[in-house]
Amino acid sequence: MDDKILNDVGFTSPNADFVEEDEEIIELIDAITADEDELEEADVDLTDMLLTTEQEELEEVIESDFAIDVAIAMEEFTDEELLAFYERLDHEHVAQVLEQMDEDMQQRFVDLLDYEAILGIFKYMSNDDVADILGEMPVNRRKTILRRLKSSDEIQSLMLYEDDTAGGIMTTEYIALSATMTVEKALAKIKEIAPKTEIIDTIFVLGAKKELVGTADLRDILVEENHVLLEEIMYDNVVTVTPDMDQEEVSHIASKYDLTAVPVVNRKGALLGIITVDDIIDVLFEEQTEDILKMGGANAEEGIDSTIIESVKFRLPWLMVNLVTAFMASFTLSMFEDTISQVVALSATMTIIANMGGNAGNQTMAIILRSITLGEINLKDDWRKVFKPIFAGIINGAIIGSIAGVIVALKYGNPYLGVITVLAMIANNIVAGIFGFFVPLVLKALKVDPALASSIFLTAATDVLGFFVFLSLAKVFMPLLV
Amino acid sequence: MDDKILNDVGFTSPNADFVEEDEEIIELIDAITADEDELEEADVDLTDMLLTTEQEELEEVIESDFAIDVAIAMEEFTDEELLAFYERLDHEHVAQVLEQMDEDMQQRFVDLLDYEAILGIFKYMSNDDVADILGEMPVNRRKTILRRLKSSDEIQSLMLYEDDTAGGIMTTEYIALSATMTVEKALAKIKEIAPKTEIIDTIFVLGAKKELVGTADLRDILVEENHVLLEEIMYDNVVTVTPDMDQEEVSHIASKYDLTAVPVVNRKGALLGIITVDDIIDVLFEEQTEDILKMGGANAEEGIDSTIIESVKFRLPWLMVNLVTAFMASFTLSMFEDTISQVVALSATMTIIANMGGNAGNQTMAIILRSITLGEINLKDDWRKVFKPIFAGIINGAIIGSIAGVIVALKYGNPYLGVITVLAMIANNIVAGIFGFFVPLVLKALKVDPALASSIFLTAATDVLGFFVFLSLAKVFMPLLV
Repeated sequence: MDDKILNDVGFTSPNADFVEEDEEIIELIDAITADEDELEEADVDLTDMLLTTEQEELEEVIESDFAIDVAIAMEEFTDEELLAFYERLDHEHVAQVLEQMDEDMQQRFVDLLDYEAILGIFKYMSNDDVADILGEMPVNRRKTILRRLKSSDEIQSLMLYEDDTAGGIMTTEYIALSATMTVEKALAKIKEIAPKTEIIDTIFVLGAKKELVGTADLRDILVEENHVLLEEIMYDNVVTVTPDMDQEEVSHIASKYDLTAVPVVNRKGALLGIITVDDIIDVLFEEQTEDILKMGGANAEEGIDSTIIESVKFRLPWLMVNLVTAFMASFTLSMFEDTISQVVALSATMTIIANMGGNAGNQTMAIILRSITLGEINLKDDWRKVFKPIFAGIINGAIIGSIAGVIVALKYGNPYLGVITVLAMIANNIVAGIFGFFVPLVLKALKVDPALASSIFLTAATDVLGFFVFLSLAKVFMPLLV
Repeated sequence: MDDKILNDVGFTSPNADFVEEDEEIIELIDAITADEDELEEADVDLTDMLLTTEQEELEEVIESDFAIDVAIAMEEFTDEELLAFYERLDHEHVAQVLEQMDEDMQQRFVDLLDYEAILGIFKYMSNDDVADILGEMPVNRRKTILRRLKSSDEIQSLMLYEDDTAGGIMTTEYIALSATMTVEKALAKIKEIAPKTEIIDTIFVLGAKKELVGTADLRDILVEENHVLLEEIMYDNVVTVTPDMDQEEVSHIASKYDLTAVPVVNRKGALLGIITVDDIIDVLFEEQTEDILKMGGANAEEGIDSTIIESVKFRLPWLMVNLVTAFMASFTLSMFEDTISQVVALSATMTIIANMGGNAGNQTMAIILRSITLGEINLKDDWRKVFKPIFAGIINGAIIGSIAGVIVALKYGNPYLGVITVLAMIANNIVAGIFGFFVPLVLKALKVDPALASSIFLTAATDVLGFFVFLSLAKVFMPLLV
């Protein structure tokens, strides 16, 4: 294989004598972790490779960390190739790859399979993953499968929660033991259940009424003497969340408290499930990339591989809203056409006022958006803090406005045009401070996503009011300008 | 205590009879997890409470998940109160709180302490945290402490790496065992080292030359028979990173492969350290909130609690850069003052073209920024994909432009003004597609953070070229417009 197929993801592979390591496995991992262009350069057909590698090697790659890469590679498969791939593996390995596929791909894949195959695969998957896949299936098919699943009660209860809540991302596969159990018994129990659970380093400790009373660390269980009770070594006060909490909030709590598993409890304190850290990471990652899109007025479903038609469809509605606000600014301008026609220099200067106001407002808005994300601010308690961006706006407006004013005054040989520029710049920076502060907070209070719609309202305000203040001043001082 | 002190973070507290739980602990947790306004309403002085609660209760709260809340509450302490707080606790509990403080607060706190106290506290902290604190200290003080620290070699090697790289966030406290060790011996060893390590569910397996050859799952070690060797149950192919990899890239790899610990190896495959999942979460959280600020042209160091002077200082440089681009657009306009003075309606219409171009460009830019974050795109391999935003721009420009054109034509009773509007809108949407696509990619290729500076270059382009195209068309068709 060409040396060029190497990329950022390193992986370690034992080369010591005592481990017989197959060259073919290394090649396969190299190929699935490479990107398209690298594959092209090295003239490797990944689909072909996945469908012809020996079954044993393929299974080993899946068992290692690379099931996700296999899942990504399968997106290029035809339906026939998907079925051929399914035939090559046992259910356990198919399950590992299926868990790593994205939602659309999962549905495409299970659509090709009959009930027996699906039930066989589900046996090797965790309940929360099964619930997610079932939730997307056609109702009839879902019901048929649920009727034949062993743990269908648990899966159905998982399906009750919204996708983006604590309940929607929690798993029911954890170790919960009674507080009055000895360390010896606990360890025996842990050995028994461990293979079926998602995490083992934290043991959840339950009271007499099955309520969560604390957590025990596997470290402590390993080193304590046999007769010690779990209640003696457990941590009493544990951070918990409710199943209806938004997944973003859960991820912030996990981040703040460095939790590797967040217990989900109902109002009576009964343990419903736990959220594992890999799901927390997925949420944070999702939110991060979503915010980038929202702030740019793009749709979360559009990606670099969307078609032109999809792009047009996703973007047009937002552009339409923008057109309305752009016309608002335009109509403000047309109110002053007389004024502009008398001093055409106003036309070139007013765009500076509007533009700078928009940018200053964006700065304030970014600070507020982050504070909202961090849960540091809300409209009711913190509205008084608006005076800070207002004062900062006055100072910045005076400094920036003075520079702009001098340039404009020199360019057009009219000091009064410079004075108007300074005044309008200060005024529009105050507008920017007020709207940059309140727009995201009001949207948040109205339960509208502030990352999405803030910038459009903000720029509408700084454009309309920026033009209005500047041209009003110009109208008043007209005798000095002509 | 008032019922109003209750907030989003739930916590479970054992109320079963068999656990004696102190009312005071619950009150203290309630108070430290409440926010300022809630404390004010309930008339609770948190500082006072932290300095007077019984030592035992305070220690229990710190041992539970709430050391972070104590650390946050301490930010309001005076130096005397910090020292009084230090006196109340033993070094182990001080260490737990110190680990949770932010950088500035850590330095403020250790500045108050003498060498003996610092050395006593460091004994209970992990090497990577000690390295981080030492890295920020004055050189003399750092050297004195390092000379007296037991694990100073390890700590000094950790200090060699940049803060935001894999090496900078890795820890050296993990369990690494020889591949030829039996499960029985391994378990004995794990019990011995467990209390001193950050993670225990993954055991790193080393070959004869101390190189990383695989990982073993504690689950498997617990259930396997005594005589089995680690090399028989380990996973061979493990994702690794190098110490110089950017922390953001590390977090993406951890997210993709669902890793709870990422091994850091040198080029020879020797294990240097591991990155634990709580640090990965911190990185993701940091990057998420930083991107919001950067895209708004705000400084990462500014927060809602910055002073007005700080706000001005942080924002002014960015506004200065913006002023330059705003003048570029303004000078473009002044080139066409003759044209505008002949048809003043142009002035109100041209802002629509510029505004819509900026917004359309922002949409494309957001998609590209996300793809860069996801590592899906780079300038060299993917520049051909620019044709998609160009075509989408033509279609969107034609649709939006037609609507705008009809309104303008009706408003001013001049169909030719409408036609010019349509043509300019299409042209500026093409400009938006090209610049929205290339600006972030070129900045990335030039190693400039694309989230930070993209929008300023983009709007400069859509403003300048939007005005230019529209007014050029107006100039050419002037006989039809007047």
